[in-house]
Amino acid sequence: MKHIDFWFDFASTYSYLAALRIAPLAAARGVKVAWRPFLLGPVFTAMGWNDSPFNIYPSKGRYMWRDMERLCTQYGFPLKKPSKFPRNGLRPARIICAHPDAMWIPDFVRAVFAAGFAEDQDIGEREVVAGLLRELGLDAEALIAAAESTAGKDLLRRQTDEAFKLDIFGAPTFIVDGEMFWGNDRLEQALAWAAGIGD
Amino acid sequence: MKHIDFWFDFASTYSYLAALRIAPLAAARGVKVAWRPFLLGPVFTAMGWNDSPFNIYPSKGRYMWRDMERLCTQYGFPLKKPSKFPRNGLRPARIICAHPDAMWIPDFVRAVFAAGFAEDQDIGEREVVAGLLRELGLDAEALIAAAESTAGKDLLRRQTDEAFKLDIFGAPTFIVDGEMFWGNDRLEQALAWAAGIGD
Repeated sequence: MKHIDFWFDFASTYSYLAALRIAPLAAARGVKVAWRPFLLGPVFTAMGWNDSPFNIYPSKGRYMWRDMERLCTQYGFPLKKPSKFPRNGLRPARIICAHPDAMWIPDFVRAVFAAGFAEDQDIGEREVVAGLLRELGLDAEALIAAAESTAGKDLLRRQTDEAFKLDIFGAPTFIVDGEMFWGNDRLEQALAWAAGIGD
Repeated sequence: MKHIDFWFDFASTYSYLAALRIAPLAAARGVKVAWRPFLLGPVFTAMGWNDSPFNIYPSKGRYMWRDMERLCTQYGFPLKKPSKFPRNGLRPARIICAHPDAMWIPDFVRAVFAAGFAEDQDIGEREVVAGLLRELGLDAEALIAAAESTAGKDLLRRQTDEAFKLDIFGAPTFIVDGEMFWGNDRLEQALAWAAGIGD
């Protein structure tokens, strides 16, 4: 089946937009989405940044928040600027890495992003993540415990290593058959690329 | 009349795309374009960069050139990766600052960008710029001499200072009634914003 890898970080503003948009757009084109969370932190550290570039470069940061406001208005998405930015997306990312093909992954991804960017919840907090899992009818305690085990931590570490190998430098990034597309702005182009590939 | 300020640097790849696209798109929406060249160099220096971020961050650079290839294919624009990047766009920028409202400005801007990104010419060279001016039937020697005068140099310096005051951090940037839009990807959105403002 036609396929797209969706690489994202739960702390990334433009990943929020792509996460809310990708499922129906991909389905309409017959493209299967692989949800690939990773950590931007180590990627930014390798680029010499010890914080989000939107904090390091204030003019870029001011622009990004205004751009997000305009885009959310256009898409009809809620937006509440997080009182702390960036949040720590480690815990939900680990949970997804342990269950990449579970049916509930898309709903959980959208719920985490909505908590972070529509409700200003701290998605780094254990109880916030547990609440989101419970709302989906899942066994929050078991999922969180497994994600925090040595094996669970290692899965996300390996996925972030893979992002490095793929030359990923930001999020969201879409990979289609070795072709990279960076940014929410490129979602439609990436899906068109995926749809154009023979089965 | 409805109005858009188009801020660009002749060394900027995505400014090339916007420069080739903006005139017909703006005309179709009844929007007048103000062509505002400036120098990204001082802006990047203030951000702590001593080179293009596409050179400082190699993964971003590799991606940018591939993205440019795909976009140029999509738009039907020629692209020849410059043998040196970034080029020095100082001279043509000064010429435009001295004649911001001349009829020949749009043609000259497109000719300089095409020389740099479609033909790999060194737009920093006096003779290259003179040749482009002559092809437009203009008095190349007089225009270049005026641009290199103290008054001519000062005009571009003041325009770059204005970019700083506007919080501009990259190119192309579109400003519509105080609203900033960054990147070739935002050209349509910026023009829609301009078209929506009452006369």
